Amino acid sequence: MELLEERIRRDGVVKPGGVLKVDSFLNHQMDIALFTAMAEEWKRLFAAKPINKILTIEASGIGIAAVVGHVLGVPVVFAKKTQSINLDGTMYSTRIQSFTHNRVYDVIVSTRFLGADDHVLIVDDFLANGCALRGLIEICESAGATVEGIGIAIEKGFQPGGDDLRDAGYDVQSLAIVETMDPATGAIEFRR
Amino acid sequence: MELLEERIRRDGVVKPGGVLKVDSFLNHQMDIALFTAMAEEWKRLFAAKPINKILTIEASGIGIAAVVGHVLGVPVVFAKKTQSINLDGTMYSTRIQSFTHNRVYDVIVSTRFLGADDHVLIVDDFLANGCALRGLIEICESAGATVEGIGIAIEKGFQPGGDDLRDAGYDVQSLAIVETMDPATGAIEFRR
Repeated sequence: MELLEERIRRDGVVKPGGVLKVDSFLNHQMDIALFTAMAEEWKRLFAAKPINKILTIEASGIGIAAVVGHVLGVPVVFAKKTQSINLDGTMYSTRIQSFTHNRVYDVIVSTRFLGADDHVLIVDDFLANGCALRGLIEICESAGATVEGIGIAIEKGFQPGGDDLRDAGYDVQSLAIVETMDPATGAIEFRR
Repeated sequence: MELLEERIRRDGVVKPGGVLKVDSFLNHQMDIALFTAMAEEWKRLFAAKPINKILTIEASGIGIAAVVGHVLGVPVVFAKKTQSINLDGTMYSTRIQSFTHNRVYDVIVSTRFLGADDHVLIVDDFLANGCALRGLIEICESAGATVEGIGIAIEKGFQPGGDDLRDAGYDVQSLAIVETMDPATGAIEFRR
């Protein structure tokens, strides 16, 4: 998506270690006009899918997902990171490894908000190794829900998560796929 | 706001200890159509204010704030809860006591995203004792930003936070103010 790629080139900051900082418009300050354009693009890309619910994970996915919910006219559920999993059967749960924060999260979704009738679009800000997405997919499987697609703002194409999910048959639509980025020059190349 | 009060009566669950559970539409599953109606109401209530930025705090404020940003046409900044405050001067920071989770959070906002030119509407899902809001107000003061108003979905009117903030001169617009709620019967009375 040209608009997002331009914005990443202009305001993204490439750091050593494969880090792309986009906190001025995506995940600390949020440019809601940009999110609306992104949501319209996913609406077009997933037009054939009977999506009735958005699923994301706290915290930085929530703002994007809320705007997608607004544009698609469907509710949003966000998975919660928690210290302690409640094992009384009222929650779907999984564990997600975060490489960014070098820790493991327990992640939960109430069984009341996801079920076999749900046709889910999973939305998140970043896709790198795909750990968070695999956790959300596992939660959908536990609920018997159908994953209709995965909408990602920025995919790190030099990490395997996105292509692994595509190989597994998921319809992953990343609006910008970074192929290479150079912390020395700040240059970013996108997948065509 | 009639629509929100009706929804709280219908789907809210009153628990012992002054807990009101609204996770089916507000802070786990999010009814984005309801959020849009709430945002329109705040747009009306704050129409005279030159708001150019929304400030909220992760995680459950983000979805509401994103929809408010969409309706008002302004960017949203969310304050981040963190384990370790970076003291290099690039962050405004404060500590917030959470009674719900019985812990203290360090909360940060980058100095790049809040400044003396900003006219801020603070948005959050709940107001009880007001600790989180006072933290966000302190961050706005550190930045030299003007707090134009505070938009809250549900205020617990039986706790002092909202009235203390009004007494201090803040324009607090809570869309539903719970005066009493009874865990035995589930009955909820709203302030008129």
